[in-house]
Amino acid sequence: MAQYSAALDDVFVALADPTRRGVIRRLGRGPTSVGDLAREFPMTLPSFMKHVRTLESSGLISTLKAGRVRTCVLNRERLAVLDDWLAEQRRVWEDRTDRLESLVTSTEENRP
Amino acid sequence: MAQYSAALDDVFVALADPTRRGVIRRLGRGPTSVGDLAREFPMTLPSFMKHVRTLESSGLISTLKAGRVRTCVLNRERLAVLDDWLAEQRRVWEDRTDRLESLVTSTEENRP
Repeated sequence: MAQYSAALDDVFVALADPTRRGVIRRLGRGPTSVGDLAREFPMTLPSFMKHVRTLESSGLISTLKAGRVRTCVLNRERLAVLDDWLAEQRRVWEDRTDRLESLVTSTEENRP
Repeated sequence: MAQYSAALDDVFVALADPTRRGVIRRLGRGPTSVGDLAREFPMTLPSFMKHVRTLESSGLISTLKAGRVRTCVLNRERLAVLDDWLAEQRRVWEDRTDRLESLVTSTEENRP
């Protein structure tokens, strides 16, 4: 549970930045070298690499080095923690709706 | 678009903390006074209020004051920005799959 919570912290932090969301979106189209990726974002390479490392440590992307080229790959399954968290919230809301409904029903049944 | 991106930044930052996610979950069960909420989280009231303000400025919750009691209410519809963003990523992935499929099909068709 603590591990799931820490994973959520990392994923939410990683996605709280437009550049990092841009990288996720770009990598959805397929693996891309760091050099090609960096050219699409208007900042210095060291600044860009910080974003890449944040994404990598969150588990949302992996990087692989072949020769002199480092390639970034999206880990789609990592985004599933967001779906899971959203689904969990919906279960809480539905439980509430069910409780309200049964309250209304029992109130109506108890009417004289 | 810039406004949507800023809204996403705020929502992701707000959710990148276990206490704030706990408040969202708790408010899913119904509106709750700040006092009752604060008792469920092991920290000082000023620390807790910081979390409440971060959630409020992200639009995920609203607070209403009636007499001396401030009540927190979840804005479920604000969480929809997450669903929208996830759906957008999926469209990118599906486009990629479609492109790969049409590439395979056209390669097969061009075989002698």
